[in-house]
Amino acid sequence: MKKNKPLILVVNDDGIDAMGIRFLSKVMEDIGEVYVVAPDSNRSGSSHSMTLHKEICVRNIDEEKTQFTCSGTPVDCVKLAFNKILPQKPDLCVSGINHGSNHSVNGLYSGTLHAAMEATIQGVSSISFSHLSYNDKIDFHPFRKIIKRISEKILCNKLPEGITLNINFPDVSYDQIEGLKVCNQGQGLWEEHFQLTSTSTNQHNYLITGKFKDNKKDICSDSWALANNFISIVPVGLNPTKSNSLDKLKYLENAF
Amino acid sequence: MKKNKPLILVVNDDGIDAMGIRFLSKVMEDIGEVYVVAPDSNRSGSSHSMTLHKEICVRNIDEEKTQFTCSGTPVDCVKLAFNKILPQKPDLCVSGINHGSNHSVNGLYSGTLHAAMEATIQGVSSISFSHLSYNDKIDFHPFRKIIKRISEKILCNKLPEGITLNINFPDVSYDQIEGLKVCNQGQGLWEEHFQLTSTSTNQHNYLITGKFKDNKKDICSDSWALANNFISIVPVGLNPTKSNSLDKLKYLENAF
Repeated sequence: MKKNKPLILVVNDDGIDAMGIRFLSKVMEDIGEVYVVAPDSNRSGSSHSMTLHKEICVRNIDEEKTQFTCSGTPVDCVKLAFNKILPQKPDLCVSGINHGSNHSVNGLYSGTLHAAMEATIQGVSSISFSHLSYNDKIDFHPFRKIIKRISEKILCNKLPEGITLNINFPDVSYDQIEGLKVCNQGQGLWEEHFQLTSTSTNQHNYLITGKFKDNKKDICSDSWALANNFISIVPVGLNPTKSNSLDKLKYLENAF
Repeated sequence: MKKNKPLILVVNDDGIDAMGIRFLSKVMEDIGEVYVVAPDSNRSGSSHSMTLHKEICVRNIDEEKTQFTCSGTPVDCVKLAFNKILPQKPDLCVSGINHGSNHSVNGLYSGTLHAAMEATIQGVSSISFSHLSYNDKIDFHPFRKIIKRISEKILCNKLPEGITLNINFPDVSYDQIEGLKVCNQGQGLWEEHFQLTSTSTNQHNYLITGKFKDNKKDICSDSWALANNFISIVPVGLNPTKSNSLDKLKYLENAF
């Protein structure tokens, strides 16, 4: 079944109809044999959630049988792609291009990044691409070459075990971009607004909106890189243990 | 508004009716003034997902106005508790007790752990409690003292910035427990099964089930601790950057 071309899985969280995934799958067709498995509608903010105790519907939507929608989360898409759709484990998984930022703390909420991380768990080199613009009509064409070059490098060298790349493009025209920066995730915080949409006895309905307050001071962070017109690349790990806190917290063992 | 007792937020992902949260809130009442904000039904597997572009319904369910259900995710519960329900920022947030394991890679999918992590983002010391038994009738009473002692220690000392405690109880009777171990998150993998529930033209419906394959060899891991009848305590960080990979990946900057 394996052809001479690498097998590439393309996923996202904005859903199958988003421009970002259509563009990204076209770029990948220059490199390999491409399968697309994406949520049937927008699943922004899905993080690493998966569907338990509920059916997930997978639907083939093209004649070549390489494009599929899924009623579940982005992580479900990856699990089903690996186990029920692809002819074998892919050589690369790319996620996105997300319409909107996944740098700084945003990565934690992101279904785009976490879909790629699920592929990393399964031992596949994976990259999440996001663009800081939320404009769903944005022209991604200037990014074609850089996406292709990074993907080819990763196909060639593989990523270190347990690492996912979280790549964000700054919201400036391509000729203003200064370069690529491999950097740390920055610190930022959402200043959220909870809009009361309706109310009745003992019940309130809210819509969450907000503004992202980025901390751009740390020159080693993605927040700084993006604010200074660099494309940011953060190597994200799967194990969140803060090892340098282990000694500080040893005193808790005396609670027994 | 602030009384002499510490203010404690109790959340979970199993939903307001789960025995785990009812027990945990009772234990917390020995220590402080308690608010409970929980999903209106089971949200296991929610990870750090939040509700975007959709109303969230918050309902008060007791006369004292300290118990609330929420139609959103565990992370939504924390956001709404902090901004719309509690009289002020709490001194502690506890999540659980989850019915089922959140050790090893399971933490990534866990709404229980991630609800606590959302409180950590907001600068509040937070603990996630889980029990390895999936039995929803399990007797948590033997754990009362240890939960109380750990929570009081954290209220007293606070956690280091950006750290959430992920605590798991082994599935053995309390008199078999060897002690507490502050340790790293272990490595494990789900061996998943995708049960085909129905099928039609171009469409397949699946239910995801599976078996957890734990790696219990690493003596510094939660997987080892739990397999050897210790209660595991993992300090989980918010920033997933794998800093020791930054140099290895610098070559990617030449792709520009």
